[in-house]
Amino acid sequence: MKPFVAALFATMCLASIGSASAQTAAPAPAPASVTEDFKPSSVNQPGQQYPQVNSQGIARFKVVAPDAQSVKVSLGLGGRGGTVLTKGADGTWTGTTEGPLDEGFHYYHLTVDGGTFNDPGAMNFYGSTRWESGIEIPAHDADFYALKNVPHGRVEQVLFHSPSTNTERRAFVYTPPGYDKNARERYPVLYLQHGWGEDETAWSNQGHANLILDNLIASGKARPFLIVMTYGMTNDVRPGGMASFDIKPFKTVLVDELIPYVDANFRTLADANHRAMAGLSMGGFETKLIAPANLDKFAYIALLSGGTFTVDDVNKTPGFKEKVKLAFVSFGSRELEGRGMGGPPGGGPRVDPRVSAEAVKQAGVNSVFYVSPNTGHEFLTWRRSLRELAPLLFKD
Amino acid sequence: MKPFVAALFATMCLASIGSASAQTAAPAPAPASVTEDFKPSSVNQPGQQYPQVNSQGIARFKVVAPDAQSVKVSLGLGGRGGTVLTKGADGTWTGTTEGPLDEGFHYYHLTVDGGTFNDPGAMNFYGSTRWESGIEIPAHDADFYALKNVPHGRVEQVLFHSPSTNTERRAFVYTPPGYDKNARERYPVLYLQHGWGEDETAWSNQGHANLILDNLIASGKARPFLIVMTYGMTNDVRPGGMASFDIKPFKTVLVDELIPYVDANFRTLADANHRAMAGLSMGGFETKLIAPANLDKFAYIALLSGGTFTVDDVNKTPGFKEKVKLAFVSFGSRELEGRGMGGPPGGGPRVDPRVSAEAVKQAGVNSVFYVSPNTGHEFLTWRRSLRELAPLLFKD
Repeated sequence: MKPFVAALFATMCLASIGSASAQTAAPAPAPASVTEDFKPSSVNQPGQQYPQVNSQGIARFKVVAPDAQSVKVSLGLGGRGGTVLTKGADGTWTGTTEGPLDEGFHYYHLTVDGGTFNDPGAMNFYGSTRWESGIEIPAHDADFYALKNVPHGRVEQVLFHSPSTNTERRAFVYTPPGYDKNARERYPVLYLQHGWGEDETAWSNQGHANLILDNLIASGKARPFLIVMTYGMTNDVRPGGMASFDIKPFKTVLVDELIPYVDANFRTLADANHRAMAGLSMGGFETKLIAPANLDKFAYIALLSGGTFTVDDVNKTPGFKEKVKLAFVSFGSRELEGRGMGGPPGGGPRVDPRVSAEAVKQAGVNSVFYVSPNTGHEFLTWRRSLRELAPLLFKD
Repeated sequence: MKPFVAALFATMCLASIGSASAQTAAPAPAPASVTEDFKPSSVNQPGQQYPQVNSQGIARFKVVAPDAQSVKVSLGLGGRGGTVLTKGADGTWTGTTEGPLDEGFHYYHLTVDGGTFNDPGAMNFYGSTRWESGIEIPAHDADFYALKNVPHGRVEQVLFHSPSTNTERRAFVYTPPGYDKNARERYPVLYLQHGWGEDETAWSNQGHANLILDNLIASGKARPFLIVMTYGMTNDVRPGGMASFDIKPFKTVLVDELIPYVDANFRTLADANHRAMAGLSMGGFETKLIAPANLDKFAYIALLSGGTFTVDDVNKTPGFKEKVKLAFVSFGSRELEGRGMGGPPGGGPRVDPRVSAEAVKQAGVNSVFYVSPNTGHEFLTWRRSLRELAPLLFKD
């Protein structure tokens, strides 16, 4: 990893690694009593009764493994190894998280006799460089990403040839409702990146980006635009760490190959003022490396739990003040708890990203800062961030 | 289940249930020696080394579960409970199938200490009403569904409102290369159904329907057309049996809701001569129940390991001889071994489907019969069947 990249990534990691504990923590204290109104999680496999969630946000697991010696669930009290299941007379293992989990989507897996397996009851989602089990703790504001009877856009799998990698690569393109019928209209495009260990399926599977846009468009809150989602770890580091990370291969695929492909094959408005780049976590890190260095391509830039913009960034990036129409930064509130972030790495003074965003605004940039209440480095933060971001994009 | 439906389903089951053993059987005798050229299966999770397959089609599994008492794999010698893994000193369980598996795609799962889990090394595919592990034994003719540098169509997820079920339902629509650019062209449509326990993801995930069409179109062997894939077990019987199966809810969704939606939202040629219905296994059964009764909607009908057409069908179905442009029937060769199929249920004389297809042809119908060599009731049979079927469709 080049030093510049390493430094930027270290900054980003303050958010992502620092909040990894939030992902598995039970932030609220254990309630005095557990309300027995458990229902199957909404992302269970068809017909599966477990895992379940109650109205307090407490999760209960049930796994059949009659001859196993131990079964654990990676969700629950982070520091204490998750939730240990206990074996019943019928050979099933059950357990309940000690306290409520944060609202929203959580990845998890089982440890059965020392091996890592998925919960047969839950659907799988690509995260942590593997297909993990997922559970959904119903959010009080879940309506904004609910599947409703409104006009729906499509999520289109495209396969494009990439000369630089000599592969056929996959992207998903959200086309808004009416895209096919309004055959003379052209649309702006948001390039939207997943986080480390995830892939191009994340934003539609666990992010519900399509449903968020469907609902925003139906209520007149966002302008119809395309969303393009592709795999961002081009110099494939799965399943290892980030040691070999290099932004160049992905930058080439995105800027030199995918953008021209999308502009040639979809009815886009193919200029910087109608193109945005955003990403979550590592995807925000990539966004910050790519978009400011390509302001002839992108005028809207958003980092979701993936770093901040500083006045220094603005001053040292040619054209930033003049060309950037929006510099959007968001975090989950748990990522900010007890910690300032976004300052220079290596022991310099830590700058609270709220302060940094305000300073960027004072410097004359349309800087918007959003904090998702009571969420950590997880998808409810990013669903909400997209809900906040989308109405701000492409204001001609 | 209504008697007529039950009878037809029983006929279909001769193929599907009868060949369930073929799915896990090792038809070839165990080779004298195992060639040590094992490579990771092509449908492993990214970066995962196991499961592996060698040049003889033998599969090897490796699972980490240091404290487990027993680990089995459901693939291998069917009647003898699959492949039993043995524990090494390092806590990993390994095992090799006793003989070669059939070429193509196989679903499987692990049994770890009596519980059913997926192999953490393999990707998951929806089959048997659950997300199962999958493994791919390289087929000698795999080129026809390979991902190549040819113009690619898209697989578009659409969400459509269904008044009869009061749900927003999902379908995937393959649009051929050039669909978006040729904005004045209209296209024929194939409605293509999955089998029992599968869903609308099957034909593109494990079936590679999109790649098969991309390659056929690139080589000039098939006319560009749309493929629509939706969930066919509308009165959701997952994960139970077929006892409550009723064709009506699905027929309503398909004929009264999805077809009008597709014709309104895609540039289709919206008449019977440009509309086909095909399905595999239970999907073939559904096709036979729906298409011949709606010959004003479908002129091309195909049953893939999902029943046969008899002269009786032809004679008793008004308009069959006049309106049906193609009656296509296919099976895997292992489904036909030692067994005649397609005759009337309840102990009547069993009719070999080859004989039946020939009789239908003699009756004046464009009857085509295809047998996939050395495959059973599995996806390589159906990939090949689609390859054979597509060039025969929509011959204006």
